[in-house]
Amino acid sequence: MYIRDMSISDQVEGFFLLQDAYAKTTLAGKPFLSMVLSDCTGTMDAQIWDYTGPVTPKDIGAVVKIRGTVSEFKGTLQITVDRLRLADAGDQYSVSDLVPTAPIDVEATWKELQDIIDSIEDQDYRSICQKMMNRYGEKVKSLPAAKGIHHSFLNGLLMHTAYMLQTADFLAGMYGSVIDRSLLIAGTLLHDFAKCEEFTTSSLGLVTDYSMKGQLLGHLVMGAHEVADIAAELRIPEEKSVLLQHLILSHHGEPDFGAAVRPMCAEGELLSYIDMIDSRMEIYRETLEEVPAGEFSKRIFALERRIYHHN
Amino acid sequence: MYIRDMSISDQVEGFFLLQDAYAKTTLAGKPFLSMVLSDCTGTMDAQIWDYTGPVTPKDIGAVVKIRGTVSEFKGTLQITVDRLRLADAGDQYSVSDLVPTAPIDVEATWKELQDIIDSIEDQDYRSICQKMMNRYGEKVKSLPAAKGIHHSFLNGLLMHTAYMLQTADFLAGMYGSVIDRSLLIAGTLLHDFAKCEEFTTSSLGLVTDYSMKGQLLGHLVMGAHEVADIAAELRIPEEKSVLLQHLILSHHGEPDFGAAVRPMCAEGELLSYIDMIDSRMEIYRETLEEVPAGEFSKRIFALERRIYHHN
Amino acid sequence: MYIRDMSISDQVEGFFLLQDAYAKTTLAGKPFLSMVLSDCTGTMDAQIWDYTGPVTPKDIGAVVKIRGTVSEFKGTLQITVDRLRLADAGDQYSVSDLVPTAPIDVEATWKELQDIIDSIEDQDYRSICQKMMNRYGEKVKSLPAAKGIHHSFLNGLLMHTAYMLQTADFLAGMYGSVIDRSLLIAGTLLHDFAKCEEFTTSSLGLVTDYSMKGQLLGHLVMGAHEVADIAAELRIPEEKSVLLQHLILSHHGEPDFGAAVRPMCAEGELLSYIDMIDSRMEIYRETLEEVPAGEFSKRIFALERRIYHHN
Amino acid sequence: MYIRDMSISDQVEGFFLLQDAYAKTTLAGKPFLSMVLSDCTGTMDAQIWDYTGPVTPKDIGAVVKIRGTVSEFKGTLQITVDRLRLADAGDQYSVSDLVPTAPIDVEATWKELQDIIDSIEDQDYRSICQKMMNRYGEKVKSLPAAKGIHHSFLNGLLMHTAYMLQTADFLAGMYGSVIDRSLLIAGTLLHDFAKCEEFTTSSLGLVTDYSMKGQLLGHLVMGAHEVADIAAELRIPEEKSVLLQHLILSHHGEPDFGAAVRPMCAEGELLSYIDMIDSRMEIYRETLEEVPAGEFSKRIFALERRIYHHN
Amino acid sequence: MYIRDMSISDQVEGFFLLQDAYAKTTLAGKPFLSMVLSDCTGTMDAQIWDYTGPVTPKDIGAVVKIRGTVSEFKGTLQITVDRLRLADAGDQYSVSDLVPTAPIDVEATWKELQDIIDSIEDQDYRSICQKMMNRYGEKVKSLPAAKGIHHSFLNGLLMHTAYMLQTADFLAGMYGSVIDRSLLIAGTLLHDFAKCEEFTTSSLGLVTDYSMKGQLLGHLVMGAHEVADIAAELRIPEEKSVLLQHLILSHHGEPDFGAAVRPMCAEGELLSYIDMIDSRMEIYRETLEEVPAGEFSKRIFALERRIYHHN
Amino acid sequence: MYIRDMSISDQVEGFFLLQDAYAKTTLAGKPFLSMVLSDCTGTMDAQIWDYTGPVTPKDIGAVVKIRGTVSEFKGTLQITVDRLRLADAGDQYSVSDLVPTAPIDVEATWKELQDIIDSIEDQDYRSICQKMMNRYGEKVKSLPAAKGIHHSFLNGLLMHTAYMLQTADFLAGMYGSVIDRSLLIAGTLLHDFAKCEEFTTSSLGLVTDYSMKGQLLGHLVMGAHEVADIAAELRIPEEKSVLLQHLILSHHGEPDFGAAVRPMCAEGELLSYIDMIDSRMEIYRETLEEVPAGEFSKRIFALERRIYHHN
Repeated sequence: MYIRDMSISDQVEGFFLLQDAYAKTTLAGKPFLSMVLSDCTGTMDAQIWDYTGPVTPKDIGAVVKIRGTVSEFKGTLQITVDRLRLADAGDQYSVSDLVPTAPIDVEATWKELQDIIDSIEDQDYRSICQKMMNRYGEKVKSLPAAKGIHHSFLNGLLMHTAYMLQTADFLAGMYGSVIDRSLLIAGTLLHDFAKCEEFTTSSLGLVTDYSMKGQLLGHLVMGAHEVADIAAELRIPEEKSVLLQHLILSHHGEPDFGAAVRPMCAEGELLSYIDMIDSRMEIYRETLEEVPAGEFSKRIFALERRIYHHN
Repeated sequence: MYIRDMSISDQVEGFFLLQDAYAKTTLAGKPFLSMVLSDCTGTMDAQIWDYTGPVTPKDIGAVVKIRGTVSEFKGTLQITVDRLRLADAGDQYSVSDLVPTAPIDVEATWKELQDIIDSIEDQDYRSICQKMMNRYGEKVKSLPAAKGIHHSFLNGLLMHTAYMLQTADFLAGMYGSVIDRSLLIAGTLLHDFAKCEEFTTSSLGLVTDYSMKGQLLGHLVMGAHEVADIAAELRIPEEKSVLLQHLILSHHGEPDFGAAVRPMCAEGELLSYIDMIDSRMEIYRETLEEVPAGEFSKRIFALERRIYHHN
Repeated sequence: MYIRDMSISDQVEGFFLLQDAYAKTTLAGKPFLSMVLSDCTGTMDAQIWDYTGPVTPKDIGAVVKIRGTVSEFKGTLQITVDRLRLADAGDQYSVSDLVPTAPIDVEATWKELQDIIDSIEDQDYRSICQKMMNRYGEKVKSLPAAKGIHHSFLNGLLMHTAYMLQTADFLAGMYGSVIDRSLLIAGTLLHDFAKCEEFTTSSLGLVTDYSMKGQLLGHLVMGAHEVADIAAELRIPEEKSVLLQHLILSHHGEPDFGAAVRPMCAEGELLSYIDMIDSRMEIYRETLEEVPAGEFSKRIFALERRIYHHN
Repeated sequence: MYIRDMSISDQVEGFFLLQDAYAKTTLAGKPFLSMVLSDCTGTMDAQIWDYTGPVTPKDIGAVVKIRGTVSEFKGTLQITVDRLRLADAGDQYSVSDLVPTAPIDVEATWKELQDIIDSIEDQDYRSICQKMMNRYGEKVKSLPAAKGIHHSFLNGLLMHTAYMLQTADFLAGMYGSVIDRSLLIAGTLLHDFAKCEEFTTSSLGLVTDYSMKGQLLGHLVMGAHEVADIAAELRIPEEKSVLLQHLILSHHGEPDFGAAVRPMCAEGELLSYIDMIDSRMEIYRETLEEVPAGEFSKRIFALERRIYHHN
Repeated sequence: MYIRDMSISDQVEGFFLLQDAYAKTTLAGKPFLSMVLSDCTGTMDAQIWDYTGPVTPKDIGAVVKIRGTVSEFKGTLQITVDRLRLADAGDQYSVSDLVPTAPIDVEATWKELQDIIDSIEDQDYRSICQKMMNRYGEKVKSLPAAKGIHHSFLNGLLMHTAYMLQTADFLAGMYGSVIDRSLLIAGTLLHDFAKCEEFTTSSLGLVTDYSMKGQLLGHLVMGAHEVADIAAELRIPEEKSVLLQHLILSHHGEPDFGAAVRPMCAEGELLSYIDMIDSRMEIYRETLEEVPAGEFSKRIFALERRIYHHN
Repeated sequence: MYIRDMSISDQVEGFFLLQDAYAKTTLAGKPFLSMVLSDCTGTMDAQIWDYTGPVTPKDIGAVVKIRGTVSEFKGTLQITVDRLRLADAGDQYSVSDLVPTAPIDVEATWKELQDIIDSIEDQDYRSICQKMMNRYGEKVKSLPAAKGIHHSFLNGLLMHTAYMLQTADFLAGMYGSVIDRSLLIAGTLLHDFAKCEEFTTSSLGLVTDYSMKGQLLGHLVMGAHEVADIAAELRIPEEKSVLLQHLILSHHGEPDFGAAVRPMCAEGELLSYIDMIDSRMEIYRETLEEVPAGEFSKRIFALERRIYHHN
């Protein structure tokens, strides 16, 4: 039974992710474990009374099997757990039931990415893309695109990159007089690759925090550096290397939004809008799913306003 | 001979737009007329000595025929004029030689606009678009999109609108889960229609200033009002009318950029980026035409930075 | 007994507004209803134990009759309710005991408004005002001026408008060389009229939220549109209509404060300050009532600072 | 003949203020004096040829008598001077013909100021005002209120203060529940008194620059200090002294507009708006005088926008 | 036993500061006192059951003696108190055990301050410093430098001032061509002196709030005023007095950070950076003490970011 | 004769830098060359009549020898040139007479830099510094630190770096509990090294513009990249490499001032203030040299205010 479907008095038995856990003591002095469980549909509080282990807070991030009953406390559902153990090698469960994943066909999207790389006319930009794919492709394929806000599910970075590439391809055609398609496609593909090193992830692949390197350097500078090194290895002409680095460094558009430099070529300008569009449309998608038609959402932190789900 | 092609000692004879004119007196007390002439390729200073009329500053904006010689003064070319008269009904000259026009096939683009209106699935939005086209279409077809900065040539508003519609059509497909294509297409078509009443124009059709109404109300509020009235006449359901007004009122994105309200639906959010993209790409196009490859432009006022024309 | 006057152990019997309600269950599994009650002096938590209806959360916004006892929980007073029922047609209670109302003589203030409209010298502006009063006057008379922050009580919009008109009348005299009194008075009267359609209200008349139209268009644009339509019906000269619309569109002064355009005539500039003064003085009045002389308030959200109640 | 009324070929003889002067040499090696002359209606360039003195640039700010002829150079009027000398003790001319003065009856306005001081109910605030008037009154009476922007004419500070006092008196009545009239009137009277020490002035009384003290401390801090010292001398209770200082320190409203602290009492809040209103209305008055009805002004630096002179 | 060292089941007996206290009633109707106790190592919640006095919330800020047992509630430690009384004259405890104090040798630092004053070459600035020290020195010696954020412990202002003086002395040498060492040292010494009157303090010397005068005038204006008065008494030349006032008024650098004026001399510019450096380094010191090496802190409010404790 | 010392009628003969040049024609049709000449004391306009070459605008940036006479035109001095030729290999002139140089002993300062590198305790940071010095030292020694604003003279980057190192060394001692001296010294030394590649320079070594790479990447990102590569070559532990990159990337403090990331360790925070202090003190030094004591400067663009030269 998925968390989203539970209601009072339901008997629950199954696998969940142990999102959080605290060892506590009742006023009467009895030990218990207070937990937050999650699956791909949501999260729920749970308690197991008179419990001292073996599951403890050190197991946060692991998969557990529980048996219990759904009750209510202060208007919120929770599970009173009877049995609790860590999942082991012999258990049968699906990761995609436990953590959210992108609503896309992963393999087909992956194929799209490779096709568009093959379509890059400029051989220098294409070879940089291929080498980056060889080095980081597998991680890019599975990683979320963020810790929260939008695309914070498995394969989120793949989905974000693939959508942006479609738009980049279209706009390169629209504005052919100022846009070098090869540069724009390469920059779009690679703009977030360094998120592979910017995040720390849980054993199931979700983003848990930013890495030391990720915070002190940022994925823009790390990505540009990666590209510069590969371009040097491949003996790409300097201007091309610099332009591609520039696209990565400037793709947040404004210093206040995290850009290391502001875009100074048409491809950089365009990339920053393509990134903004895909991020914003995904925020709308994720938000409007939760809001009935004809109503407004709560204030959305990233947009600093409420949005409307029209009929 | 076009102004762009003139050099010292050239004999010039032909039609030009009288952009500006001052009646002056030399130190020696002789009257002369100091002029700025223009054609579709640029502007140039000119003087006619010992001259008191009949052409005077009241003729600014008219077409004149001149004969004269190109010379240089303080490093800048100018024309010393021998003969000067107003163009009259019998003269043979082309308006498109005198003022800049959009680099598009006007009739084909106009047809595109009509086709995309016909493709709007929602009958309510489609009928609003048709009525607006009947009322303002001819003016939209010929008007520049701005006084300066970008698209400030004849048919500029048509070019800007048509380019944006192509992008809107594409993105409506990309983000079909949150975008109502009919609403987005209608909003994109109509977003700048009220520029017809926001500008004052010269006899040749270029924007000379903002109208009283244009400055005190702005084209966003005027356009929304226009749409509201037509929607009421057509008895369109209120939500649709309000959404379409909202797209027009919010298409500048942020209050600091002139939006009367911030976008609160996905179509409004997207429209503001589509508008930004087309404006920016046109600024790049117009700027890079003047900058040799491998060099940076001067600081561009609207972007607050220099841009690079890469190889 | 008013909520403001209750203390521990008081026996309470009377009518209250059911502000909020949650159906809950105790740890022991017993159902109860947790409520927030209010009258014109404040709000208080209340519980009725072992209760499943007939009053339920669907009755939020209704008037209820209760009997109970005041107790304390974690330092806060609350009412333990014994009896609970909805008020019915036969009950005797006064709305003004249940919801806060403006500290003014409503009818006298209403008369003032009508007198000042009669005093408008310019017949065009006067007739627009009269027609707007016919159409919206009754709603303006009773509506609060806001959901919170200031004037959020019944007749609040009337009080706000009437105070501003007095100031406008005075300043029109002070600055007669640049101020057209008729325009300023008309703009001041009408600047917030569209709040009638911007808010949703409870059955007792308080503002509960913003309407769909109110959020997507805003009361500035809605008000200007209303005026434009009436001016067109009355065949008022266009400049007057545009100026009056401009005052309404610009009365928040700056885009960051919600103005659709910035004031560009002296009357618009002045109106924005008159609005600011009355709003701010009312915030001070409402705040200082709660702060003892010689002390500072808590930080006030709308002012972003604390204020001092001097001796 | 006033400068505003001069036209080409006029013979001019009279007294003018020597605003600026440069000793120069023609290309042919002849010395001449290039001058800017002014009277209460405007400024004009002037030259006297073959001239080495006795009038030289060291006489800037003095009154001169000239005789000459009006001519035109590059579209601008100028005076070719035949005779030039400094005005001396025996000359008959009026200062008010040479420099602009406030459009008020100075003595009547001065009387108003004194009457309103007499009307201050609180004896402590009244005595501070009286002592400040004794010390600085005469300078306040004649000083301009600014170097430029608004009220930059003789008696400008008196006009500005008197207008604000009328508004303060009115609003103290309107908002009697939160406003202490005595404090507001005293703060309004004294808010700009320290401009006496903030400016340096020419011999005819116009502001030429800011003093060292004026720039390093500002008139807000200087004025508050002055009041604190006088309050201490008069043994006024500390709270009153602090409140009056606070009004002076905060009368620019926001730190970005020069306030040393933000207003934290109702009188300070109100004073900042009264000051803003009078400054802005005077900017409108001075600007609209130069703009024909039905037209927009140029962009006004202090407002960051154009304004409209309606019919 | 210090609060930092307590763990579940510890028996506690000793003196603590009564930081906060609420008289409450259990659901069962029994009175108890809920307290927050503190010592120099931290704070802890505590309860004494069935208790109505004599210690009550009016004793907040006093020292109490307690006996009790450490327990846990919802994951947080607290003390269940058996005995509770106010400390009296005969009790033996050390203030420095109860409140945090600066990690410096107070007397040695105090001596440093006096030595550097003696080293001021300019006799005028030196004599102002000496007179200020005579008047306020003892309070400066013991006061915290802030209510929170940094240096909010006893002798914090002394520590902050002494550190800044060392840096000022060094930089006066580095930039001798533009820095007048006497002015910089005097300004650094005196820049925060008026905090003596800006704060209200508890009986043990910690800052509890801002005074009325402190909020309405601020320590910059109060400090400048103090210096101006002393300079006048000592008949110091006006420029020196104005410069020293200017340093105090501008030491926050920008109006948005609280500066009454922006620095306009090299010493003021430098002082604002010296103040910023010492404040920031102390924030880092206090924060990094709590963060293990190799980890990031939580978001720090004053810096608007997280900081890293490197290895 | 230095430009600063020239006056009307002086006969001039010597070497100057050809800063700018235009080939023009007089009204009478005669060719002449209009030039801007400069030496280490300033710039001056110059003309040579009836001249068609061999010196032409293509020689801008070269050294020329001239002979001529100083005259005045519109109040400004200029040189009428009789003889003009390019300097050649046999000419005797000193570069330091032609372009401004830092007011320091270059070799002694260079030695200081090397000594402080030798004093770095951490071997990893020291070896990075040494390798960077081997690679870029010679260019750093001679380069200006900027195109304008401050330190825009030869050896300016050396002077700026050396001053900052002295301050860094001192503050590392002051704040030893949070500052790793080795990291701070290394970061200070290297923070601007990439200016070697950010600028383009004239043949005499002054900065003429920014390079393509310099504009598209910026010296922060380029410098960090350089350090990362060298750290990798030297197999330095990753944290040290990341920290040193972080100092370089964050040394402008805020994104609005050009920082790629904001400082997140104490050394980065401190470095940004040390850089600010040295830049600002140099602006004061260069400005106050031109302003008499007791007067204010003109508004300084980089500071957005005027500054005072006190007595």
